[in-house]
Amino acid sequence: MTIHIAIDCMGGDYGPSVTVPAALHFLHAHLDAELILVGQTGLIQYQLEKHKTLRSKSFSVHAASEVVAMDDPIEIALRKKKDSSMRIALSLVKAGQAHACVSAGNTGALMAISRYMLKTLAGIERPAFAAVMPHLSGGTTMLDLGANIDCSPRELLRFAEMGHALVSAIEGKEKPAIGLLNIGEEMTKGNETVKQAGELLRASTLNFYGNVEGNDIYKGVTDIIVCDGFAGNVALKTSEGLAKMLGDMIWQEFSRTLPSKVMAALAWPVLRRLKHRVDHRRYNGAALLGLRGLVIKSHGSADACAFEWAIKRGYDAIKNGIQERLARAVEENNGNSAARVLPIS
Amino acid sequence: MTIHIAIDCMGGDYGPSVTVPAALHFLHAHLDAELILVGQTGLIQYQLEKHKTLRSKSFSVHAASEVVAMDDPIEIALRKKKDSSMRIALSLVKAGQAHACVSAGNTGALMAISRYMLKTLAGIERPAFAAVMPHLSGGTTMLDLGANIDCSPRELLRFAEMGHALVSAIEGKEKPAIGLLNIGEEMTKGNETVKQAGELLRASTLNFYGNVEGNDIYKGVTDIIVCDGFAGNVALKTSEGLAKMLGDMIWQEFSRTLPSKVMAALAWPVLRRLKHRVDHRRYNGAALLGLRGLVIKSHGSADACAFEWAIKRGYDAIKNGIQERLARAVEENNGNSAARVLPIS
Repeated sequence: MTIHIAIDCMGGDYGPSVTVPAALHFLHAHLDAELILVGQTGLIQYQLEKHKTLRSKSFSVHAASEVVAMDDPIEIALRKKKDSSMRIALSLVKAGQAHACVSAGNTGALMAISRYMLKTLAGIERPAFAAVMPHLSGGTTMLDLGANIDCSPRELLRFAEMGHALVSAIEGKEKPAIGLLNIGEEMTKGNETVKQAGELLRASTLNFYGNVEGNDIYKGVTDIIVCDGFAGNVALKTSEGLAKMLGDMIWQEFSRTLPSKVMAALAWPVLRRLKHRVDHRRYNGAALLGLRGLVIKSHGSADACAFEWAIKRGYDAIKNGIQERLARAVEENNGNSAARVLPIS
Repeated sequence: MTIHIAIDCMGGDYGPSVTVPAALHFLHAHLDAELILVGQTGLIQYQLEKHKTLRSKSFSVHAASEVVAMDDPIEIALRKKKDSSMRIALSLVKAGQAHACVSAGNTGALMAISRYMLKTLAGIERPAFAAVMPHLSGGTTMLDLGANIDCSPRELLRFAEMGHALVSAIEGKEKPAIGLLNIGEEMTKGNETVKQAGELLRASTLNFYGNVEGNDIYKGVTDIIVCDGFAGNVALKTSEGLAKMLGDMIWQEFSRTLPSKVMAALAWPVLRRLKHRVDHRRYNGAALLGLRGLVIKSHGSADACAFEWAIKRGYDAIKNGIQERLARAVEENNGNSAARVLPIS
């Protein structure tokens, strides 16, 4: 099967100067993929010309005259810019012309337009951003990473159900363990929302481990961690900032003196592998779960390497049939858990 | 001046087996300090005997028959255990026999007993945990790190005022820059509390930078970052977890094969310095600000090295006259800002 992905070329801090070369690079490594480059054709063509050594035949350009700016209010993006690259890329998913859409654009706008264009799965009120946070022997799937600032206990339960469906689909685990992000392990910890979510999770058929703390993300204590979008975004961004600083610190130490530079040269094979492993660009791309179509959000500040990883994230999700599996699982859970959680609104 | 610090020897996951050797080690490096070891004398004496090569004359043992368990409900710790090591250590601060108290005990209990025993400074309703998060060219003072789960906009303003007083006292900066932790830089981001806190901060005489995100902690964008205790604790614990994992990853890469082990041996001087810089134990110890006395909280899981850093944190704070400066600054701010923030409750 050919994998079709619509790329919102105008999104992100750098627009086509990042998204187009990333798309071309991606195509070179993925011969069964076809990309639809959506945006202002003049700017896209300029970048295609600039990177003509990378030219591939597996793409098409789809015109969209408007651009959702990174600071556009959601209302403007949703109601006024009906020919934005973001909206057109999403409409290709809705029309079945693309299996997924990848965008580095304005998060709030992407969330709102995705919901408006694609609609949510039955029983899901608020989609959530999910991504894998790596640890030494695998990864922890974490959601929500910033789509929803305040979440009700029932929404946190929904995130757990979606995380369960995602991880069991990708990793083939029948009963992936789910943790609830909190500021202590004890059941009495946290605010009312988190405590009630804990009760709902304990009463569910999910494999609920209990409360986890920030450090547990990188210990791999559970397969999945659920949290509201504020806490999740803080954890994600803090991690990116720290990983970048520690990476810089390694190079600072190895370039401090002439002897340390010599050591760096000698240890280069190991340092290169290390650099690759800690490169946070490799973890770029969060899936917006709970919609009737697959949407991948890249960081706004992504460079071409990072944006290519976000496209790859979409490609892998399509290959794994995530959308279909998730829809099926949510539908099944929906019937079961709706009855179960009724007592708490 | 001799620095007197009361040590809650029974607190933490490991009690006297960690706190006593940490205290003895600390005394060897700080000849102007005297420590009061508070707890069950038999257990303390056993550890003193075990570490007799480290014996110093600059300590005394103060008996306390009870122990606040790490999972004791706050009510039990506060109302029932009146002879706990935590409470007795705090009473020594209250009585002026110690300049500060250091504890690795139950956070909720420490917070409650500290408030009860020492009382808050005028105008401060809720003390906050503050600590320095390191970056390449210094550190960012962050509060609250877990004392208060939900915070009102006015409490976030108070944290900013306390952070201001702390950083201007320690670093001699007249107008330290203050950031508000959020999930985007724009003023429209975040929940209602954060938005209102932003308004209060903008209207204040503080040097308010605006919203910052998790990655800004490690860029050193501002001198101070304020947030509620839930988000702060997530940022702190996530950082500890990631730093530990990346440290493990470095050793994993350098011990993977015989050639990489040889490289590690060659690069050892650099790796050792790096290991020292990224060792999160060096950042152990958060000050509980806003009380009429200095309290330092160590991680419950601290080992002797980490606990010694928490004692050092208290020692430095006393040397810098933090408590007096903070009390003075809060008093001054109190008069000014109470009038200013009245419209928003």
